[in-house]
Amino acid sequence: MSHIDHTHDPKAQSWVASANTAGTDFPLQNLPYGLFRRLHSNESARVGVAIGEQILDLKLAAALGKWSSAVQVLLQPLAEGDLNSFMAKSVAERRALRHALFDALREGSAQAGALQAALVAQGAVELFVPCKINDYTDFYTGIHHAVAVGKLFRPDNPLLPNYKWVPIGYHGRSSSIVASGVPLRRPKGQLKPPTADVPVFAASKRIDYELELGLFTASGNALGEPIAMQDAEQHMFGLTVLNDWSARDIQPWEYQPLGPFLAKNFGSTISPWIVTMDALEPFRCAFERPADDPQPLPYLDSAANRAEGGYEIELEVWLQSAKMRAAGEPAARLVRSNFRHAYWTLAQMLTHHASNGCNLQSGDLLGSGTQSGPKPEEAGSLLELTQGGKQPITLPNGEQRLFIEDGDTVILRAFAERDGARRIGFGDCACTITPAL
Amino acid sequence: MSHIDHTHDPKAQSWVASANTAGTDFPLQNLPYGLFRRLHSNESARVGVAIGEQILDLKLAAALGKWSSAVQVLLQPLAEGDLNSFMAKSVAERRALRHALFDALREGSAQAGALQAALVAQGAVELFVPCKINDYTDFYTGIHHAVAVGKLFRPDNPLLPNYKWVPIGYHGRSSSIVASGVPLRRPKGQLKPPTADVPVFAASKRIDYELELGLFTASGNALGEPIAMQDAEQHMFGLTVLNDWSARDIQPWEYQPLGPFLAKNFGSTISPWIVTMDALEPFRCAFERPADDPQPLPYLDSAANRAEGGYEIELEVWLQSAKMRAAGEPAARLVRSNFRHAYWTLAQMLTHHASNGCNLQSGDLLGSGTQSGPKPEEAGSLLELTQGGKQPITLPNGEQRLFIEDGDTVILRAFAERDGARRIGFGDCACTITPAL
Repeated sequence: MSHIDHTHDPKAQSWVASANTAGTDFPLQNLPYGLFRRLHSNESARVGVAIGEQILDLKLAAALGKWSSAVQVLLQPLAEGDLNSFMAKSVAERRALRHALFDALREGSAQAGALQAALVAQGAVELFVPCKINDYTDFYTGIHHAVAVGKLFRPDNPLLPNYKWVPIGYHGRSSSIVASGVPLRRPKGQLKPPTADVPVFAASKRIDYELELGLFTASGNALGEPIAMQDAEQHMFGLTVLNDWSARDIQPWEYQPLGPFLAKNFGSTISPWIVTMDALEPFRCAFERPADDPQPLPYLDSAANRAEGGYEIELEVWLQSAKMRAAGEPAARLVRSNFRHAYWTLAQMLTHHASNGCNLQSGDLLGSGTQSGPKPEEAGSLLELTQGGKQPITLPNGEQRLFIEDGDTVILRAFAERDGARRIGFGDCACTITPAL
Repeated sequence: MSHIDHTHDPKAQSWVASANTAGTDFPLQNLPYGLFRRLHSNESARVGVAIGEQILDLKLAAALGKWSSAVQVLLQPLAEGDLNSFMAKSVAERRALRHALFDALREGSAQAGALQAALVAQGAVELFVPCKINDYTDFYTGIHHAVAVGKLFRPDNPLLPNYKWVPIGYHGRSSSIVASGVPLRRPKGQLKPPTADVPVFAASKRIDYELELGLFTASGNALGEPIAMQDAEQHMFGLTVLNDWSARDIQPWEYQPLGPFLAKNFGSTISPWIVTMDALEPFRCAFERPADDPQPLPYLDSAANRAEGGYEIELEVWLQSAKMRAAGEPAARLVRSNFRHAYWTLAQMLTHHASNGCNLQSGDLLGSGTQSGPKPEEAGSLLELTQGGKQPITLPNGEQRLFIEDGDTVILRAFAERDGARRIGFGDCACTITPAL
């Protein structure tokens, strides 16, 4: 099923020079979609494709480039700023545009001259949430996170009995999803430490990040019509980096019996570029369950999923405190993890979600849940890293953290790297927490 | 704060004769908003106001009626089929349109001749979800439901310790909210009876309704900016009847630790008319906590909320089986309850939701949770009525039910009635469950 073609050729270079540097997140092989507006302009938001340190403005590209009539049709919604309509198109159509953009941006393309005027520097724009997110669902596929957090509450029985059977998920809040760079205010909420008799309404003292990837859906399904495992990939558009911000002191008091609510919905941050599934083809990997674990029920199983349902994507958490920023010190990396540790695949998340007939729509966001690795130092949240807020971590400048302080900027990063493929990056998912009201 | 004016005069009559009959849901004093399309037409959906057995088509009304320029501005988004933009307007603006429509539809209005051509019979249209629902949240304000359901799982400790402090809520799925009349397919899901070793994926055998009201928000709030109790009413647009369909055998296996998911998101049904808060003004009532209960924390308390934060709205559940339908037998009423039993008011739901800075948007739907009354026969779900699926109920034709069978139509109804006020109804919230795939 894996679809490697000339757009994955690691030797291919772009006439946009910055796309050819070794460390770029956005080489010619990536071509992720985003929504931007030129700073100091009155333009409405436009869809663009990141290439090196530039953005190809698809409104201008549609007007200035030479495209086949089929590609012009594909470009039309994008030129109008409507990514959702393009996301709903078929795999073949989406791939056709990838090919057209790849060829147009490739070194030696006859389009270089015309499209030069369709480029805008990434530093000269504001980036937004790239599409209309109709519904946001967060899964819980990080088994090492589930075990580590479970241990804090139930030392003898950290993993609930449903975990290895059900891709656990719950509905999140779509309105408060913001793009990288938008600050979020520390929330207030009902706090009731175990020792207190009654709750108080006060600012959260335990703000935490969660290191996740988010899947944007392509075409949806009609209400009442499930999506079979073998069809799931057609409904996958691309991935983003997701920080599912959490208030750890609001969560325990509010979440029984119906799940997290205000502990989560004060804001979630995503990286503003959607890296397409096509760009990630070279990084697929086998999805294997430990032999002792139950195998997925038939509706969540397929040979293709076992052979290549996983994705090897490096994940990182960085932190820069206000003090570090003032001193001109760079962010420090706290953690590295990898998406290959997920207990359920993207296809299983999607198929499970629609298995009862729930209708997905193009532009829905499905979070992966916190992607902690098996080692304690690969933890995807401070709750885990600090053992429930008990063991502080120390930053390079000597500052200590149990949870996030006001002025801290958390930067989540993701990239895929493998011999024989060009490195594909996601861009930063960064957010600064500002003081409570 | 209660705002009673001439639009609440119970003696006022309409020139639309069917609005003056005793039992109508839609007298001149109601004027609820909906979205409709004439059957067998190619028109796009239009916003209308129900009046008796008719609908005032606001696109035609804007063109044919005589309106002040201020009212014309208010009518413009509605004439374009965009209810959300109107919902976001101020209380004074929304009230201004109510007054204009009331006066235009009142007996003796000089507009009667012109607006006659803007009427369409309710029987000649299809009704839709009335606005774009960006996010759907379901609360759990029915304390008698919470106790009854809690008893099934925890006989010694039915109500969790947070219940009387936190207006418990969780995020639902907006894409699968459908208007009255749209059938829903019985979902499949992972079922694991307590006696089974492993789950199976099969059709749910325990489909249940939940009797709720839904609050549609008016204007929203910016991310990070809470809504104070004294401002909450400005953000309330109106109410609908809501059936939060539930699969009782999917729920217990999937819902730990993050709450209900596929047990709920296969579909939720709403009545297609939004009854405005203005129409419900005469039915406000005091909101009182039992003296022994904790009083609301200050952020959830206000004198106005205590004096008149509640609403007396009668709620009913009716059922018509396929066999009853085939025999020409009418639906049978299973239950009556009342919204005054809610443990938290609409204002408290809304203020709590935004208390952490979560941004509400115009057209969000906030469900009340199942509104069971204090008596067992006032239960708002079959789970309660049948004592956890153990004691069947008997329909008038002798059929028995533990849960909903294929072909059953569940009809939820709501109305407000009080001496000195005209009866205000909501229209049916009806849905038939069809067989699983």
